[in-house]
Amino acid sequence: MHFEHSPTCQDYLARMKRFMQEHVYPIEQQVYDDIHAMNPDGNWRQWTVHPAMEDLKHKARNAGLWNLFLPDETVGAGLSCLEYAPLAEETGKVLFAPEIFNCNAPDTGNMEVLYHFGNEEQKAKWLTPLLNGDIRSVFGMTEPDVASSDATNMAATIEEQGDELVINGKKWWTTGLGHPNAKVCIFMGLSNPDNHKHQQHSMVIVPLDTKGISIKRMLSAYGDYDAPFGHGEMHFNNVRVPKANLLVGMGQGFAIAQGRLGPGRIHHCMRAIGMAEKALELAINRGLSRVAFGQPLLKLGGNGERIAKARMAIDQARLMTLHAAWKIDAVGVKNAMTEISAIKVVVPNMLQEVVDMAIQIHGGAGMSADFPLARFAAGARALRLADGPDEVHMGMVTRLELKKYQ
Amino acid sequence: MHFEHSPTCQDYLARMKRFMQEHVYPIEQQVYDDIHAMNPDGNWRQWTVHPAMEDLKHKARNAGLWNLFLPDETVGAGLSCLEYAPLAEETGKVLFAPEIFNCNAPDTGNMEVLYHFGNEEQKAKWLTPLLNGDIRSVFGMTEPDVASSDATNMAATIEEQGDELVINGKKWWTTGLGHPNAKVCIFMGLSNPDNHKHQQHSMVIVPLDTKGISIKRMLSAYGDYDAPFGHGEMHFNNVRVPKANLLVGMGQGFAIAQGRLGPGRIHHCMRAIGMAEKALELAINRGLSRVAFGQPLLKLGGNGERIAKARMAIDQARLMTLHAAWKIDAVGVKNAMTEISAIKVVVPNMLQEVVDMAIQIHGGAGMSADFPLARFAAGARALRLADGPDEVHMGMVTRLELKKYQ
Amino acid sequence: MHFEHSPTCQDYLARMKRFMQEHVYPIEQQVYDDIHAMNPDGNWRQWTVHPAMEDLKHKARNAGLWNLFLPDETVGAGLSCLEYAPLAEETGKVLFAPEIFNCNAPDTGNMEVLYHFGNEEQKAKWLTPLLNGDIRSVFGMTEPDVASSDATNMAATIEEQGDELVINGKKWWTTGLGHPNAKVCIFMGLSNPDNHKHQQHSMVIVPLDTKGISIKRMLSAYGDYDAPFGHGEMHFNNVRVPKANLLVGMGQGFAIAQGRLGPGRIHHCMRAIGMAEKALELAINRGLSRVAFGQPLLKLGGNGERIAKARMAIDQARLMTLHAAWKIDAVGVKNAMTEISAIKVVVPNMLQEVVDMAIQIHGGAGMSADFPLARFAAGARALRLADGPDEVHMGMVTRLELKKYQ
Amino acid sequence: MHFEHSPTCQDYLARMKRFMQEHVYPIEQQVYDDIHAMNPDGNWRQWTVHPAMEDLKHKARNAGLWNLFLPDETVGAGLSCLEYAPLAEETGKVLFAPEIFNCNAPDTGNMEVLYHFGNEEQKAKWLTPLLNGDIRSVFGMTEPDVASSDATNMAATIEEQGDELVINGKKWWTTGLGHPNAKVCIFMGLSNPDNHKHQQHSMVIVPLDTKGISIKRMLSAYGDYDAPFGHGEMHFNNVRVPKANLLVGMGQGFAIAQGRLGPGRIHHCMRAIGMAEKALELAINRGLSRVAFGQPLLKLGGNGERIAKARMAIDQARLMTLHAAWKIDAVGVKNAMTEISAIKVVVPNMLQEVVDMAIQIHGGAGMSADFPLARFAAGARALRLADGPDEVHMGMVTRLELKKYQ
Repeated sequence: MHFEHSPTCQDYLARMKRFMQEHVYPIEQQVYDDIHAMNPDGNWRQWTVHPAMEDLKHKARNAGLWNLFLPDETVGAGLSCLEYAPLAEETGKVLFAPEIFNCNAPDTGNMEVLYHFGNEEQKAKWLTPLLNGDIRSVFGMTEPDVASSDATNMAATIEEQGDELVINGKKWWTTGLGHPNAKVCIFMGLSNPDNHKHQQHSMVIVPLDTKGISIKRMLSAYGDYDAPFGHGEMHFNNVRVPKANLLVGMGQGFAIAQGRLGPGRIHHCMRAIGMAEKALELAINRGLSRVAFGQPLLKLGGNGERIAKARMAIDQARLMTLHAAWKIDAVGVKNAMTEISAIKVVVPNMLQEVVDMAIQIHGGAGMSADFPLARFAAGARALRLADGPDEVHMGMVTRLELKKYQ
Repeated sequence: MHFEHSPTCQDYLARMKRFMQEHVYPIEQQVYDDIHAMNPDGNWRQWTVHPAMEDLKHKARNAGLWNLFLPDETVGAGLSCLEYAPLAEETGKVLFAPEIFNCNAPDTGNMEVLYHFGNEEQKAKWLTPLLNGDIRSVFGMTEPDVASSDATNMAATIEEQGDELVINGKKWWTTGLGHPNAKVCIFMGLSNPDNHKHQQHSMVIVPLDTKGISIKRMLSAYGDYDAPFGHGEMHFNNVRVPKANLLVGMGQGFAIAQGRLGPGRIHHCMRAIGMAEKALELAINRGLSRVAFGQPLLKLGGNGERIAKARMAIDQARLMTLHAAWKIDAVGVKNAMTEISAIKVVVPNMLQEVVDMAIQIHGGAGMSADFPLARFAAGARALRLADGPDEVHMGMVTRLELKKYQ
Repeated sequence: MHFEHSPTCQDYLARMKRFMQEHVYPIEQQVYDDIHAMNPDGNWRQWTVHPAMEDLKHKARNAGLWNLFLPDETVGAGLSCLEYAPLAEETGKVLFAPEIFNCNAPDTGNMEVLYHFGNEEQKAKWLTPLLNGDIRSVFGMTEPDVASSDATNMAATIEEQGDELVINGKKWWTTGLGHPNAKVCIFMGLSNPDNHKHQQHSMVIVPLDTKGISIKRMLSAYGDYDAPFGHGEMHFNNVRVPKANLLVGMGQGFAIAQGRLGPGRIHHCMRAIGMAEKALELAINRGLSRVAFGQPLLKLGGNGERIAKARMAIDQARLMTLHAAWKIDAVGVKNAMTEISAIKVVVPNMLQEVVDMAIQIHGGAGMSADFPLARFAAGARALRLADGPDEVHMGMVTRLELKKYQ
Repeated sequence: MHFEHSPTCQDYLARMKRFMQEHVYPIEQQVYDDIHAMNPDGNWRQWTVHPAMEDLKHKARNAGLWNLFLPDETVGAGLSCLEYAPLAEETGKVLFAPEIFNCNAPDTGNMEVLYHFGNEEQKAKWLTPLLNGDIRSVFGMTEPDVASSDATNMAATIEEQGDELVINGKKWWTTGLGHPNAKVCIFMGLSNPDNHKHQQHSMVIVPLDTKGISIKRMLSAYGDYDAPFGHGEMHFNNVRVPKANLLVGMGQGFAIAQGRLGPGRIHHCMRAIGMAEKALELAINRGLSRVAFGQPLLKLGGNGERIAKARMAIDQARLMTLHAAWKIDAVGVKNAMTEISAIKVVVPNMLQEVVDMAIQIHGGAGMSADFPLARFAAGARALRLADGPDEVHMGMVTRLELKKYQ
């Protein structure tokens, strides 16, 4: 056991930090303000990508900081899940950073699905432009009319009709749907209702310009639309795609999802840890510079202890996530279910508390758009629900724990 | 000691509940949706009041449900702080309800200030239209450039020049500033810097159309602009008002503020308790109707216990607030400082937790604008800062507790 | 609604405080030390009552501070549940005080059972000496071999044989069993296994010197034996009592228990609130007098806030308990089930946290027998299990809350 | 970074688990019961070591499981702090296990002090018999009359008089003082009051049979005397030892203490993690076997989630402690102060919560001496104070965090 990152990882980390320092932090607040001003909330059809983005993506790719999440050496960087983790943390500190490195959700998960489960034709058509950052993608899973915490509730249907698959139903919280470059959806729906519970659903590639798809609206999360990505509600009305768009086979949806979710949770959690570090940094800067009752805020009452509690909570959460990443690398997702579920509970709750503390130190400013804290808070809150709520993951940890005794 | 509300209070409560049932709840969701659609976020100069509001106000006034917060029988309803408390709770359940009864912050606080501290001329000019609901008002206290948790930090200046007072500086989180009917600001600023710490500030009535006032922007709180009220940032550049606009006298700002804050905190807290009751109701309705893993959500894992915890937390917070209201009535604000500070800490934190639970039960829907939960969450978060952060109020409770031992 | 105690209550409270001041506090620490020294832990057969007790009881009775818990004017003080509550709080501050006023558990509960459900003969034989404080009693309910959180699990048997009832089985956590004056047990057991679930058990009066009863041991709770009362394990081997010892009738055990538990929980909770007040007082005295890093402990870090949190938690818990007491008086135990279960959860948890804080302020001394804090901690911990664990009471609150929606 | 223990560590761990399985677990409960019965609480002069101990120590030494904590290959096992950590966890599961392997506090810390700071003569006289397990030792630091959370408060004096050092003052919470084999005390006292704050104290070796030492009493912690080790109060009245007993030099006490505390905290924390694992195991066994309301306890309400929360908290705490151990090995105690202080806060609080949960699952039995849970609870509570209270360690973490910004 030792706790030093591999030389490769350290090298990437140093380069990424340098990149952030040179290209991202200097324009961080400006981009936040611009995005806020450019994208009329709710009016998502007018949303635009910030003009700096394409240039930053170009620079990142040239710097070899591109598709770092993919363990494949040729199309990605050949980093293990554990080696990528601290890079994901770094990108989490700035809300628009992950896209710069083509490492943003849900594209990463979709690329993983296509990489691991797509056939050559599917890869050529969809994976390549995604890897190039030319298009963006969405994932259609959560539905408005059922409790999606139980994924087997998914009720939108996929029916075989001749050479086509016909899709009907509703999806919402489809992240990235508002992005001007969003072109394709990985859609999961009920295809084989008579099969065993976890073999009833399939995954299909659905181009977003297919007839019958209507985007109803973007949803605000804690009042925030997360432009220009957004979280959308989309309706499918007899949407037809060729059978060639099916991933793996009918009824294989959950098998694919399983593989997708392991590394994705590491990514999410590490980005959340990056947010927490940023929130703590902001809290300390504010708390040392603002004075009340004759003292910097951090010298007053329990404020100092709150800094310690944040440091301790972040450090524990990071170690737990790195351990889970290592376990995925070492023994595979299926043998790391306790760890993967545990971080999914621990990290977003930790982030929620750390950000709440940071907001409190900032006073009203902390809730405003002058700082990224309110958006971190929304992110934390959402992450306690996305990919399964806390309760479902605790249930998994419990189940696996009790299993040891039977 | 007994826990039944007075007959007068019970009568008002029954009438208000009937009013809400007949006139408000039937259009509740529609009004939320309309407000959302009508008021382009951030673009506050285009904000408008919902068309139903004036009619509702008219009906409420006719029903004798008007200015209930004012203990005066002629202009208000003659209710004690304790008798008004459960009515405030009732209005808290719907975000736009307090205004219907002319009982919304910050107008209530401003009316109290004018009622208790205004001279006849000031009352005639500003209190009367406020009591009639013809205009709205704001309160200028928090400032962007200092830690406002220490109110003595307030740095915007009020200078005497001949017959005028000249005002310079910045205020933000000025609630209601975006409202089309907002006409006047009660402004608090530094006027006598050489006086003792709590006699350096004064309160002045400043019409919002006075030259030199510029409204820079509305601030979002957790992404929410709280239209059409809003929380604004306003700058004062050599703003001149006649000395007749001074309240009480130079250096009397804190003395006035003290009296204003006691009942105001009861109102805030009771509305927050109403929000918590509404959140719990929504959680139960959702939790009983949505099914996962073959069971209604509330039968799963620890969800049932969460309902009990919410009930117990709400009931404790309510009793504490009612007791504080009773104590204000019985012995005055100055002798109820522990109680007033205690509820200011307990209630918003309780609300934050109950709403967080309700959101979790709702899944993604809970974070969206389809339910008022995200706005309750923003309200709870803001209330942990507004009128003094948790920490300052805990400091007050501690100080008074230790005093008993000296 | 108002929050002043009745004149009668205030008069009793003033007299009790005076009594405590004159007779109890001056010898408090001495009696603790003596009890510690006199009663060899575990060696319960040698336990003795402190020599001061009989005199104190005598004085209390003469002062009219006797059997205050009984709402009957002739045998008790005629106080309502709400009027007795603050007196119970006062007795809670000193571990041996309740017995002084003949108001200690489980005798109070047993006296209530005999008072409400005993026939004249039973009262003459057992209630009278209990009311006189001449004997002590125990209550046999919890059993070692089943999960007693589900009271219907009780498996010790009561069988009718001719004119006798024959008792077999085990009971433990029988409080007061080690007391030299313990003479009688109210025993609850399974008598009618074919009845409906809540009509299978009966209550019987069993003199402790009946043949077949063996006291196996006293149990330590967090290492504390609670001498000279103790919590015992007793085995019943063909124990025979006349049928005349049956309370009410066969299968009526739960009906009797129900009535017993309501006021008993108020008493327990108010005493626990008294402990919390005492713990807070000790914490403040210690925290103001001990100096570290150049400051009294309470000026360091978050310690001040901890005092405020304790004050706020205690005040909420007290109001909730007083409200529950009032509701029992006003509408009866059956209509106050939410309130009674809620305080049973809230108060012991509050006490546990307040005492934990007080111990932390005391350092090692707080854990030692030099202060009553460790025993308060044990009391709080036990009270989270006794008379139903937290979880069972939360379940009750949940059930009644959901019922409103069906 | 990887998370597998070294082959050496794995080998030791396997052997220790086998040893526990073969020799310790089979007699675990019997030894607990015996210790309870053999050692009349408080009456510490009659305390005796359990007869099985010497045999177990002999077996452990023969099995090469002896002095594992010492990184020296010749006298210890040559294990790094990180390699020893999981072994310490294993010993933590049984209260009397650490002594079997000569790895119990405070002897380990004292042996480290003598090993690192003793001269040859001191080592020969005191370290050798300690390494052989022939004698036991104590550490005299905490004092009854000052706030010992600030170690510079230590007021017991060491004065040079000719060739002797003269010691006066009081110490308490001296762990191990009741042990029949306790022969020597490492005493820390105020020797150079005019020096800089951290150079005023010295450490001296004081044989316990020196004239002038009186052992006043053993202290109970949560009612538990922790026999046959105990925590004692000792008074020093003109106690004289030769100057040769001074460690390192006058005024060097804190410098020595610093080095002692780093690895010691790892040991304490890992044992605490072992206790938490044991508590969780007991909770699961009980919760699966006891039935209420027709279900095993762990299927009821939020009980399942509590298991998950315990698992997640333990795993985080363990990773944090292992990381701290690694950092001590890699960069030394002085550069791992954040980590060492952080675990000192996190682990005992985690243990307190996990044990509290386990007790709740056990019902009354959990508080009794039938399970080790109450003693684990006392251990957790004590550990939140010993070697510096939570608050002092949070202060350290805060200070080091803020330093990064200056």
